Amino acid sequence: MTAMPLTVPLPVIGVIRSQYTDTEHTPIQARLNVSAEARIEVEPQYADGLDGLAGFDFAWLLTWLHQPRDADRPPRLRHVPFLLRAQQRQVGIFATRGPRRVNPIGLSLVRLLSVDSPAVRFSGVDLIDGTPVLDIKPYVTRFDRPPGEPRCGWFDQIPLIDGSTPAGLGPAPEAS
Amino acid sequence: MTAMPLTVPLPVIGVIRSQYTDTEHTPIQARLNVSAEARIEVEPQYADGLDGLAGFDFAWLLTWLHQPRDADRPPRLRHVPFLLRAQQRQVGIFATRGPRRVNPIGLSLVRLLSVDSPAVRFSGVDLIDGTPVLDIKPYVTRFDRPPGEPRCGWFDQIPLIDGSTPAGLGPAPEAS
Repeated sequence: MTAMPLTVPLPVIGVIRSQYTDTEHTPIQARLNVSAEARIEVEPQYADGLDGLAGFDFAWLLTWLHQPRDADRPPRLRHVPFLLRAQQRQVGIFATRGPRRVNPIGLSLVRLLSVDSPAVRFSGVDLIDGTPVLDIKPYVTRFDRPPGEPRCGWFDQIPLIDGSTPAGLGPAPEAS
Repeated sequence: MTAMPLTVPLPVIGVIRSQYTDTEHTPIQARLNVSAEARIEVEPQYADGLDGLAGFDFAWLLTWLHQPRDADRPPRLRHVPFLLRAQQRQVGIFATRGPRRVNPIGLSLVRLLSVDSPAVRFSGVDLIDGTPVLDIKPYVTRFDRPPGEPRCGWFDQIPLIDGSTPAGLGPAPEAS
């Protein structure tokens, strides 16, 4: 059996309001930018879904990474992620956390500061202003923390520095 | 500014092959079913994207939770999650991890057993056979592990028992 592409409506449950407007100058991961704050403006018709969220310290944001997009071509399956620009080393997209993916769905771990429905304030920001939010899931340690110290592939071989942005990690490779 | 619904193609990058066929009898979370094994059959045209994934112990699977679906109505914003069936307690959907969501995108933390492209074997199974896979992201401790022992809302008040299935947690509430 071959899987068929899904074409489905993805309701946008809210929008990110952040200080960042350009991916190249936005920190690449929420946990590398924990001092920055931003908020989700949840669409009023979904606000009741926030009931109970304030009891959690952390949440996952699933977002639609609308930028950078090369709308006219699919992403390359191997490319140079932001963190390997200095080495110009390519890896498979399913071994990266960057935004250029087959399905550009972002996964950000954020600390919840307040749930003042329909606004959710959080710290840990890797999203540009206007990013559509597809889902909010509470962080549950029992489900989300693997035991021990897992191997993390090529990430174990490089420094992961707070505040890193794509622009700060080197020039974009050509045709990346 | 009001967010517009996205209607986008979501390429299915692979399909889950598991022993489970019915959500009611499938463990509710991958980390509550770590001894079970399953595999992803990655579509051959995306297989090159797996390059480098074998260096990671854990990965996130983003999936399209095609079941259970009530295609003719949107999900209720407050409902009784599987784990609160005994209490018949409702919470907002963004404070739950269940499959009935505005966007039914699943997030499963799995242990990678082998990457034998285009097949990926893993342990920790909460997905039924045939579930479409939208993305694979490597687990990176620096990005995915919050500090300390975060509050986990209502999950902190109930037992989280290995092997729990919806059917084992009580009858489905009416009109849930």
